[in-house]
Amino acid sequence: MTCWWNWIEGGGNVRIQAIIETAIYVDDLQAAETFYGTVLGLRVIGKEPGRHVFFQVGEASVLLAFLAEATLKGDQLPPHGASGPGHFALGIEVEAFDAWRNLLQVNGVSIEKEVEWPKGGKSERCEDRR
Amino acid sequence: MTCWWNWIEGGGNVRIQAIIETAIYVDDLQAAETFYGTVLGLRVIGKEPGRHVFFQVGEASVLLAFLAEATLKGDQLPPHGASGPGHFALGIEVEAFDAWRNLLQVNGVSIEKEVEWPKGGKSERCEDRR
Repeated sequence: MTCWWNWIEGGGNVRIQAIIETAIYVDDLQAAETFYGTVLGLRVIGKEPGRHVFFQVGEASVLLAFLAEATLKGDQLPPHGASGPGHFALGIEVEAFDAWRNLLQVNGVSIEKEVEWPKGGKSERCEDRR
Repeated sequence: MTCWWNWIEGGGNVRIQAIIETAIYVDDLQAAETFYGTVLGLRVIGKEPGRHVFFQVGEASVLLAFLAEATLKGDQLPPHGASGPGHFALGIEVEAFDAWRNLLQVNGVSIEKEVEWPKGGKSERCEDRR
């Protein structure tokens, strides 16, 4: 696991402010761009064929989709690349929950589970096999 | 790769707001708690011995450290658990860059690389082998 401490503009204390990059490793960059970019509406902010496509998420975060077979070779940065089913969660607005469920279903994304959490909030879970 | 659409409070449009959960898979939960909690100062918001420890990051995100050998068995949620070197980045304030470098070094965390990015910003990179 590699972790970067990047600086972001802000107040004045020595605290970690946010998770600003989250990496996922995919088998098909074009499918990832279609799903996260076209279906989910995330803005593509960078891409390099055969290596990666990056998406802006909200104001402060980016989702990095890499081909592990490329990043495990390393380049200017040390090698990285994980395999197996990972997990991350994207935040949506409570009012948009039903709209998102519909959008996912219309796009053929099967929702495997919906959970109402004891402390409030609810989630719907899909699996990205792309 | 599994991804959750959770709802968070906010405005009123159908856009993804943020990455609110990022998972990492570790070999030693106590070492993860010491590093991310004690050294980096992230607040522990949940833990289950033998399975996970969760950390609050900023206002909106959580970092989830799992033992893959436990989560790959599944429970109320489907199994997940990746292996190999992953990547994520934590945001710090520009004024605190030197203080963070010092804090990491004092705690025996070797900084493998510092990068100044062409579009602004700089990063220091460490590898978490815990």
